[in-house]
This record gives sequence, structure tokens and C-alpha cells, in this order.
Amino acid sequence: MNSYRLLFESEYEDVVEKLKIEKEQNITGYYELPFQNISLPPKKKFQEIVLIGIGGSSLGTRAIDSFLHLKRKAKKIHYLDNPDPVTFKNKLHQIDPKTSLFILISKSGTTLETITQFKALLHYFNLDLQNNNEQFIFISDQNSALDKLAQKYKIERFYIPKNVGGRFSVLSSVGMIPLALAGYDIERILYGARFFLKRFFEKKEIALMKKATFLAKNWKKFRMNVLFSYANELENFNKWYMQLWGESLGKINSKGESVGLTPISLIGPRDQHSFLQLLAQGPIDKSVTFLRIANFEEDILIPNITLPYLESTDFINGFTFGQMVNEQAKATMKSLLKRNMPIDEIVLPCINEESIGELIIYFELLTSSVGSLLQINTYNQPGVEEGKKILRQNIG
Amino acid sequence: MNSYRLLFESEYEDVVEKLKIEKEQNITGYYELPFQNISLPPKKKFQEIVLIGIGGSSLGTRAIDSFLHLKRKAKKIHYLDNPDPVTFKNKLHQIDPKTSLFILISKSGTTLETITQFKALLHYFNLDLQNNNEQFIFISDQNSALDKLAQKYKIERFYIPKNVGGRFSVLSSVGMIPLALAGYDIERILYGARFFLKRFFEKKEIALMKKATFLAKNWKKFRMNVLFSYANELENFNKWYMQLWGESLGKINSKGESVGLTPISLIGPRDQHSFLQLLAQGPIDKSVTFLRIANFEEDILIPNITLPYLESTDFINGFTFGQMVNEQAKATMKSLLKRNMPIDEIVLPCINEESIGELIIYFELLTSSVGSLLQINTYNQPGVEEGKKILRQNIG
Repeated sequence: MNSYRLLFESEYEDVVEKLKIEKEQNITGYYELPFQNISLPPKKKFQEIVLIGIGGSSLGTRAIDSFLHLKRKAKKIHYLDNPDPVTFKNKLHQIDPKTSLFILISKSGTTLETITQFKALLHYFNLDLQNNNEQFIFISDQNSALDKLAQKYKIERFYIPKNVGGRFSVLSSVGMIPLALAGYDIERILYGARFFLKRFFEKKEIALMKKATFLAKNWKKFRMNVLFSYANELENFNKWYMQLWGESLGKINSKGESVGLTPISLIGPRDQHSFLQLLAQGPIDKSVTFLRIANFEEDILIPNITLPYLESTDFINGFTFGQMVNEQAKATMKSLLKRNMPIDEIVLPCINEESIGELIIYFELLTSSVGSLLQINTYNQPGVEEGKKILRQNIG
Repeated sequence: MNSYRLLFESEYEDVVEKLKIEKEQNITGYYELPFQNISLPPKKKFQEIVLIGIGGSSLGTRAIDSFLHLKRKAKKIHYLDNPDPVTFKNKLHQIDPKTSLFILISKSGTTLETITQFKALLHYFNLDLQNNNEQFIFISDQNSALDKLAQKYKIERFYIPKNVGGRFSVLSSVGMIPLALAGYDIERILYGARFFLKRFFEKKEIALMKKATFLAKNWKKFRMNVLFSYANELENFNKWYMQLWGESLGKINSKGESVGLTPISLIGPRDQHSFLQLLAQGPIDKSVTFLRIANFEEDILIPNITLPYLESTDFINGFTFGQMVNEQAKATMKSLLKRNMPIDEIVLPCINEESIGELIIYFELLTSSVGSLLQINTYNQPGVEEGKKILRQNIG
């Protein structure tokens, strides 16, 4: 199990009771996801997966895939998650349509970036919904336009629970179907999520309640939460967190005021050579969460080599890179603690399915807790509609 | 040439005079870089480059490489920029030491993450400074420890001007040597930078002066500057900007107060499905810079396909993906303008060497201008030393 440690003092409110009410009122359904049974589609033959989806339809899958990929020998997933013409063209050259399974994910069923890329794929590879229907899987809301299209052409389809929004959907079919098909053990991911979820609802996760209470009460002073993750494998997890935090907590509250906590993603030790100076001497307007992996397992030794003139670096010889990275995280944390910044630390025991499943539900529950204390609707995103309207006006 | 457009009103101070003083007093030397002659090393035989460097030693090179890579057929550069054991091990499997040129970059010459990775490379590939010296290039300050090591083993070396810090060094040997060796036309990059630099010092870039004045005067209200770049090719440019902005502008000012502007990186249209909600309804504590590429040139058409039930997406058929991305940027900008946020827009005519050279010097000059108005030292980073000291205490 992961370790969660607050390095600041805080009182706490009973957010668990608030979230129980949300659960009972069916305001969101993500609390149920770790307990679901996911039935996989019948065995299909394919070498690689092409996942077409943007935002909540791909960020979570990508977070888990990147975290586990180099450790597990899963199938490659190509992500078509941004309709950039240069990378899209490059992707088209890399994909072999004969040996690929295409998974199209859109909650509404009509996401512009996703449907346009799908159309371009059909055209470029000369694929046909009628004759190639076994190469497709559609994941969408029941009765969405995409669901109806799937029915028409007998395309395999999976549903997203109506009351689970994109950014909370990774543990639903949205993430679990592609990950299972790629070869990951989704049961272990769900187990990790279940483990923490139960403890939270039993009110055993006091650190989470304190952190949520502190961040909600002091959001005007500590406007930004930095997630400083010491592993390249967590870079896509940080992107998932950026969406979860920003899209959930940037809202108009019940009194009509704009509130919001801004997420910031850093990767260590790399960003000690970048953003750290701002944390060390800039204004104290941020909280910082240090996230690290205690044991990288297949680690590499820093060899016992002395190079002339570079003897000052020899103190680290004989350590592993994983140990160095962890020591750097601890030293940086200690240096920032002197400034009285609200800092907390999350330590994953190692890179595995349970630790990432647990981490996901931890951040989801934290987000819901902060949202409920801010008296906002954590689960909608009304602010993004305006731009879509203008786009249609300008083009249509 | 790029287009720079402010969508808010502001007075401006004559920052050009302030920067001229910095130039005369030799406080920073980056203003001279676009005019330098870079002499390349004698022709070497190699297929790929391995660049070992962190922070300012790699971010700028990576920004330009990622921007141009799919368009130009340059050699592959492997970046060892973060000592993460999992990705490092994976990289070791990808690198063929026999056909690789190893470029080691460290301004101080003793950067821990860089030297440890270099030692591990020597060990893993059984390389030897004496016998394989032609496979190495070292880039560092003159008389640094690394420079002395290079002299000892007759390794090709290049210098970084003493008064050019890492984050302002991409147009020095730090970026230009690896990029030239990879096959990029560095003259065109420097030409773009020169073009804008001259105009700036001729006081023709009023928009930059206004933007700098506004951001410096209102930093407590608009604490964050979001760079919203509508192209995957700009993702590493955004990371370079994060370092430039954060490490330069997070400082203690001449009155002893902590000041600082926080950089945030977004990629569009992807992050319209993520962070946009926070911009649209959250607190107005950010300025937003929209960055887009007017013409992607080798673009892809959205085919004229109608899918049953998905007719609502047909309004965009016949456009290119590049056009769609640009229209989305414009629509999002328009939707945020209604909130009276300080927004500006940068449009690159296309993906080429001049546009990225110009963009780099634009952001460097903007950073220097804001820094001088905030009365801070834009060019040092004293705050990062504390963590390094603690690391040595804990380990040494």
C-alpha cells in the first residue's frame, strides 16, 4: 500500500459524510467502479491498439500504460488524442491497419477531435464499418450517437455509466477495456483502488481529510497545487491529475463566486533544474505534493568510477539511480519545508498495478473532498461549451 | 516573421533602455549569441547522437528538435535528461554505442545527474575516455572540471560564454552544436533570432514592452502565465519556457520580498478537454498566451464522410486538421476574452527554423524585460543550492 504523509498541521472536516451523500444521491457513480465486474470482448486477433479519444477518454489509460509499460510486456497502444496534423500524419505511417484494433472512445459520442480523426483513419486506410466491423470497439454512453452507429454496423460496444464523467472514468470501461486488451492485469488495478476506497469510507484516511480541508479553506492563499513526481513513468499520470484537478475545481460556487485551485505538473529530479527556483524563493502561493517510488526494483548502479577533476561527484558512487532520485526528492522536500510551505508526501512502494490503482482513487477522492468543501459541482464542466458554440458559428 | 498581438490595453515602460544597460554592463551575454559564428567540429562518422544534459543543457535543444523533427530529416537525438532508472535502462537498450556520438553538456561541469549517467554509460558500453575519445564532445564553461577532463583526454570541447546561464544558452554552443550535428540549419535559426532582436533594440516591438509592463505591474493579480500552444510539436518548447520563466522570475527582489510569476504549459486543442474549464470559470488570476501555427503545410484533409447519427460533426468536413486546430484556438480565445482576461496571441507562419529562432529570442527578451521591471536578478538561481547541500549532508 502507498504511504501518505502530511508535513503540515491541519484540522479536518468530516468530508466522508459529504461524499456518502453524493453517493446516495447518485451524483457521481465513480465510487462503484472498483467493485464492478468487467466482461471482456471475445478474443480478437490483433498486434497493436489504436485508441482514438481526447481528454478523459485517453488521459487515464495513458497514465496507467506509461506507468507500467516498461515493466510489463503489454501490447503497444497508439494514442490519437490530439488532432495535430504533423503527429497525426506520422502516426498514420506507423499504424498497420491489418493488425490493429481500433478503439474509439467518446462519452457524448460526438467529440469533434475524435470523430474527425476516425473519419480520416477510415479514409486513409480504406476501412469500412460494414466489412471491417470486427476491428472496431466503441466505448460511449448508452444511446449516444456513437452507440447507435455501433448497433447499426454490429460493432462491439461498451458503456460508460451515465453518472461518471470523463475525468473520473478511467476505472470504468473507458480505461479498463483498452488496458485489459493490451494485456494488463486490471483486477490488480481495481484491487488497489478498492483497498483505499474502503479505508476512506471507513474514515481511516485522516491525512486525506486534513489535506482536503486545508486546501479548500486556504485556496486563496495557496492557489496552486504542485504535483512533483520523481519518475518519468509518472509524467502522464501528472497530466491526468491536471485534468482531474483543474476541470473539477475551477468553478462558480453556490454563492456565484469563481473559485479554483490550479494544478501544476513537475517531474523530478529534472525540474529541480527548472521550476524549483520559483518554489524556493518565489511567493508562497503554492502547496506541493512530492510523489516518489521507493523501490524501482530493476535498478541501475552508479558505477564506482572516479574521473579526474570530477571527484566531487564520487560521493554518490555505489548508490543506484533509484536511490539517488529518492534522496534528491527528500533533500528538496527538506529544503522547501524551511519556508513553511504546505507540503505532503506520497510514496509508492514500487511500480505495480495496485499502487497506481490506489493512487488514482486517492486523487479522485481528494478532488471530490475539496470540491464538496468549496461548495461547487465537482462533476460538470459548463465553461467549455462557449468555445464550442463560437467554433460552430465561425465555421458552420 | 511571427505575429504578436495583445488583446488588452496597457501603458509601457522603456524596458529597452534597461536591457541596454544590462548588455553594456555584461550582466548577461545572450544578446550577442544570434550574431556569433559557430565553427563546427571536423566531420565525424556517426548515425545517432546521445545528449547527456539536464535543465538548460537539454531543454532548448529538445524544443527546437521536437519542433522541426518530423519536417526535416535530421538524425535522431537520444536525450538522457533525467536519471530515472526505468527509462535510463530502456535507453541503454536503444543506443548503439558503435555508431553514436556522445555529447555531454554541463555548464558547471559537475552536474550530478549528468555525470552519474555518463559514468554509467562508460561502464555499460565499456567505453574508455582514452581510446574512444573521438566519440565524445564536451560542452561546458572554460576551465570547468569537465573542460580539464576533456583536455586531458583530447576530447573535442566547446565553451559556453561565462555570462550566459543555462536557460538562456540554447543559441550558444549548448544548442547549436548538437542541432547542427544532427543536420539542422542553425544559420536559419540564428537568423530568426537576429531579426527579432534587432527590432526589439530599435524599440519597434511595442507589444512586447506593453506585455512586460503589464505582467510586472500586475503580477500579484495575474500570478500565472499560461502558454497555450496549439501543436504537439510545441510541447517541448513549452517545457523550455517553463524553465525560462519560472527560474528567472521567481526571486527575492531588491527590497527583500519574494516575487514571482508562475508558468503553466497547455497544449491545444487537447487541453480544451482538461484545463480550459478552470480558465473559463475559475478565478481570474492568470494571463493567457495563445500560440499557434497558421499553416502546417503538409496538412491532412478531414474527409467528406457522413456517418449515420454523427451528422452533427459534418460542418467541419472538407477543412484540414490544421485549419480546425487554428479555428479552435481562435474560438477558445474569443470565449475567454469575454471574461476580461489579459490575453495575447502569437502566430507562427509555419514550422521552420526562422520562426522557432524568433520565438526563442522573443521569450528571452520578454523574460528579461519583466525581470528588470520587477527589480530582480533575472539570471541567477540561488534558491536551488540548499537542496544540493542537504543531499550531500544526507549521503556524503
